[in-house]
Amino acid sequence: MNTNRQWLLAKRPFGVVTKENFEYAETPIPEPGGDEVLVRNLYLSFDPTQRGWMEDRESYLPPVQLGEPMRAGSIGQVVESNNPEFQKGDLVQTTGGWQDFIVAAPGQGVLGLSKVPDGVPPEMMLSVLGVTGLTAYFGLLDLGEPKSGETVLVSGAAGATGSVAGQIAKLKGCRVVGIAGGIDKCRWLAEEAGFDEVIDYKNEDVNTRIAETCPGKIDVYFDNVGGEILEAALNHINMRARVVLCGGISGYNATEPLPGPSNLMNLVVMRARMEGFIVIDYMDRAGEAVAQLMNWIQAGELKYQVDMQEGFENIPDTLNRLFTGQNLGKQLLKIADRG
Amino acid sequence: MNTNRQWLLAKRPFGVVTKENFEYAETPIPEPGGDEVLVRNLYLSFDPTQRGWMEDRESYLPPVQLGEPMRAGSIGQVVESNNPEFQKGDLVQTTGGWQDFIVAAPGQGVLGLSKVPDGVPPEMMLSVLGVTGLTAYFGLLDLGEPKSGETVLVSGAAGATGSVAGQIAKLKGCRVVGIAGGIDKCRWLAEEAGFDEVIDYKNEDVNTRIAETCPGKIDVYFDNVGGEILEAALNHINMRARVVLCGGISGYNATEPLPGPSNLMNLVVMRARMEGFIVIDYMDRAGEAVAQLMNWIQAGELKYQVDMQEGFENIPDTLNRLFTGQNLGKQLLKIADRG
Repeated sequence: MNTNRQWLLAKRPFGVVTKENFEYAETPIPEPGGDEVLVRNLYLSFDPTQRGWMEDRESYLPPVQLGEPMRAGSIGQVVESNNPEFQKGDLVQTTGGWQDFIVAAPGQGVLGLSKVPDGVPPEMMLSVLGVTGLTAYFGLLDLGEPKSGETVLVSGAAGATGSVAGQIAKLKGCRVVGIAGGIDKCRWLAEEAGFDEVIDYKNEDVNTRIAETCPGKIDVYFDNVGGEILEAALNHINMRARVVLCGGISGYNATEPLPGPSNLMNLVVMRARMEGFIVIDYMDRAGEAVAQLMNWIQAGELKYQVDMQEGFENIPDTLNRLFTGQNLGKQLLKIADRG
Repeated sequence: MNTNRQWLLAKRPFGVVTKENFEYAETPIPEPGGDEVLVRNLYLSFDPTQRGWMEDRESYLPPVQLGEPMRAGSIGQVVESNNPEFQKGDLVQTTGGWQDFIVAAPGQGVLGLSKVPDGVPPEMMLSVLGVTGLTAYFGLLDLGEPKSGETVLVSGAAGATGSVAGQIAKLKGCRVVGIAGGIDKCRWLAEEAGFDEVIDYKNEDVNTRIAETCPGKIDVYFDNVGGEILEAALNHINMRARVVLCGGISGYNATEPLPGPSNLMNLVVMRARMEGFIVIDYMDRAGEAVAQLMNWIQAGELKYQVDMQEGFENIPDTLNRLFTGQNLGKQLLKIADRG
């Protein structure tokens, strides 16, 4: 192989992303400069927030530019190294993008460049120990401040972030209710992830079911979806509740602004707080979180699911699995085998 | 006078409150029991939140019951006392309601019973030193956490709460922008209350004007109105902004739920916080606030306006002055002269 296959952002999306938003290209394999390494991407991470990176608007990261490879976190293998800290063959985590090869260096790009610890499977590193796991950890603990005995409601509960947030809440002694779409996801939450109650938003009335499953009201709401489910949750918040705004996937493909919750005054009546965060602000504390998450995994107290797609040609379609809800757990795609 | 004139809640409102929601009654003057005092109301306080007390729904206070006098804060004069701490003739603050007389005692009702300090005019006690002043003080300082040099935006800025919140922010070294309706209110804010910039929402495009007047974005937004103005403010929040939800007067007369802001995801992107509060939670710290507010008033650093209506028969119509924006500053009504 002597070309670098790429999916470039060709057209900014309006509504649902399609293959027409991307252009396939083959370019020369880039050359690493001083202190840089050439990485061959093996696994790509798909996250709802990537949809926002395609828009030309101010956000927590600059937009992906037209003609650039689509941005994505990745795990790859060092092919060539000019940096003494990395050897050919090392497994590394970086922001590889939708392409075969990237030149990377520590401190560059969103995720920099770091070695995958020995013995940690790539799919674990890119999910429960990766950005989505850290998002759950810091969002729930730092903003949600769950206390033993409290009730925690999680939306997008079967997703890579929500499932970890809910399980951490259980580990902190909370009663945990999860909202997810479809029987398979709800069964996994109840039977594998140990959620106390599950609400299937595709088959149940969410507002009614929150009232039934949270009779003592909601102390912490960890929100990944926004929209009507956020409004339903706000109907049932407890005094001094914490609403952790992690994401709002229900609106990411919207072609016009969707109305927000009509019941924000409940935040006043209940003296409650709603707060947003971005996990990249917590990267200096990532070590603490990874160590704790790893302990829970090894103790069998933290479960995770990975939905592994395959094939470079399937990259654009795989992003949409997050928005149709087809993914069961963390959405990854494998480009190549480890060399 | 040997009857107690009253305005009773007769019908719960749907939309704008009218005289038909109340019934005029004359009842015997009540008798104070042990430790109680009989108070003759002199001044009634009108506050937007009273509109919510008329609804039959769970809130931070129980609803006013049909057939009961409408609830309202008041200053009155002790007519008869069975409590050694109060003497006939004392000026007292209590929750007198829409009536001539009430039996009151310390610790009873929303506001309990307390003496008005010697030399403090009743209209000062019921406004800048009263519930609205304390709301501004604790909401701005405890939730807003303004720091010198930050930009603070206040809606309902000419109102009894907003005007005090904005002036406290100025005293803390902030740049303060106020949103109010109409030229008179805006002129008072700029010329008397010392706001750095004013936005007249009745004559200007609020979103455009926020962008113009807050070029460094908004660090603290003190919101009294909700609705479209809240949405406009959220478009311009700074990193780690604090949105203090004090009230949402734009929706209080709505006959169906109004959509909330479509841009709550800005709280995520900007790592911002939105929080509600109720001033009655801070009553144990009222002394601290009153002392500080009094110092500022005496130093000429804190201005306030009172809109004093008169006449028992005008009580029901006076509430609506808050919703039409007719009031210039704190809305009060005088029932009787001090005896």
